[in-house]
Amino acid sequence: MRLESTLTGATHPAPEPRTPTPRPGGRSTRVRAEVVAATLAEVAEKGYDGLTVEAVAARSGVHKATLYRRWGGVDGLVADALTASADQPWPLPDTGDLRQDLRRITQEVFSVFTDPELGPTPTALISAAQRSDTGAAALRAFFAARHRQAAEVAERAVARGELPAGTDGAEVVRAATAPLYYRLFVSGEPLDARTAERAADAAALAAHAGLFTPTTTTPEQN
Amino acid sequence: MRLESTLTGATHPAPEPRTPTPRPGGRSTRVRAEVVAATLAEVAEKGYDGLTVEAVAARSGVHKATLYRRWGGVDGLVADALTASADQPWPLPDTGDLRQDLRRITQEVFSVFTDPELGPTPTALISAAQRSDTGAAALRAFFAARHRQAAEVAERAVARGELPAGTDGAEVVRAATAPLYYRLFVSGEPLDARTAERAADAAALAAHAGLFTPTTTTPEQN
Repeated sequence: MRLESTLTGATHPAPEPRTPTPRPGGRSTRVRAEVVAATLAEVAEKGYDGLTVEAVAARSGVHKATLYRRWGGVDGLVADALTASADQPWPLPDTGDLRQDLRRITQEVFSVFTDPELGPTPTALISAAQRSDTGAAALRAFFAARHRQAAEVAERAVARGELPAGTDGAEVVRAATAPLYYRLFVSGEPLDARTAERAADAAALAAHAGLFTPTTTTPEQN
Repeated sequence: MRLESTLTGATHPAPEPRTPTPRPGGRSTRVRAEVVAATLAEVAEKGYDGLTVEAVAARSGVHKATLYRRWGGVDGLVADALTASADQPWPLPDTGDLRQDLRRITQEVFSVFTDPELGPTPTALISAAQRSDTGAAALRAFFAARHRQAAEVAERAVARGELPAGTDGAEVVRAATAPLYYRLFVSGEPLDARTAERAADAAALAAHAGLFTPTTTTPEQN
């Protein structure tokens, strides 16, 4: 059931909540938003090694004891900042052509991470998340959620007959974006717009060839 | 000029070395090998946060003062362990078919990093290198060297007419291996043999389509 239909009662009457749940705009929601914003700012400025619950408390105006109780510590703060990012609505391209859609997605990743204003925060957040098991689990969930969301561009391509039925859409998105994240977070080699475009094109080509269907025998099997 | 021709004097007489250089099997070479081995063992056991010059000194039997003088500190030790790894001879597959060669390469990456015996050390080393500028520079150089070496599989494919002239061989290798490293070091999603095979196949497909030539307009440009 979609969130909107729950809220509007379009398909079922909204059930009475049994425990108090965060309401949009409610106090709990506002506190979390303040804490996430403060965590992101602290991580971007000081990195994981410089991140403290005290500094997040000071910056967010939320009491340190509340932070420890609700988030456990710095690793929980980093994990929740990622979870909050994964929850953000993320407009997907819909050009009617898989390759163009994938190019928009890789162009977006390229633009964000290489932008001197926008890039440092997500870069620092991902690096910070890699530093603890809690963070790593949130990172895994974050990327899995992004892949699932973006898989829609491949699912639409299947629906319009551009891709074979059974194509694993999340895998198409992973293939398109992996060469970018590889450079950004593993090899450290420079990333440019052409590389982003080429990664999208290669993923589209592989998807068209049926490489991302579960039972595929690849076209030139030998 | 190739290294071999320098050494044999094929094109120019080899110049007299002006400073003593490490000889294979010489004391300096042995000391470095001990230090690299000790660094790898310490990083694998304790991670970057637990790595100390003292522990590397104790394990290698090389005096702490020597380590500080020649390596500067833990970041220099990590960087040199990577450099030493990059220098290791790395047998390349030569099946006569690009896709098969790339499959062997991605299979090797998959096997090493997911092996419970072999995987932890390189995984810890890469993670440790990400923690300092010195380490990151060594990591960049390490991957660039690996890509350059492995580019030979694509260069051979060009030579036998399988790939278009001008194909960027290093880029073919990056495309094949990026989906593996992305899972291992960024998204944290599980990696399996099928993913490794598919990454190789997708890279081969893109290479055959001419995506990795500098002036390419991709086949389905629109």
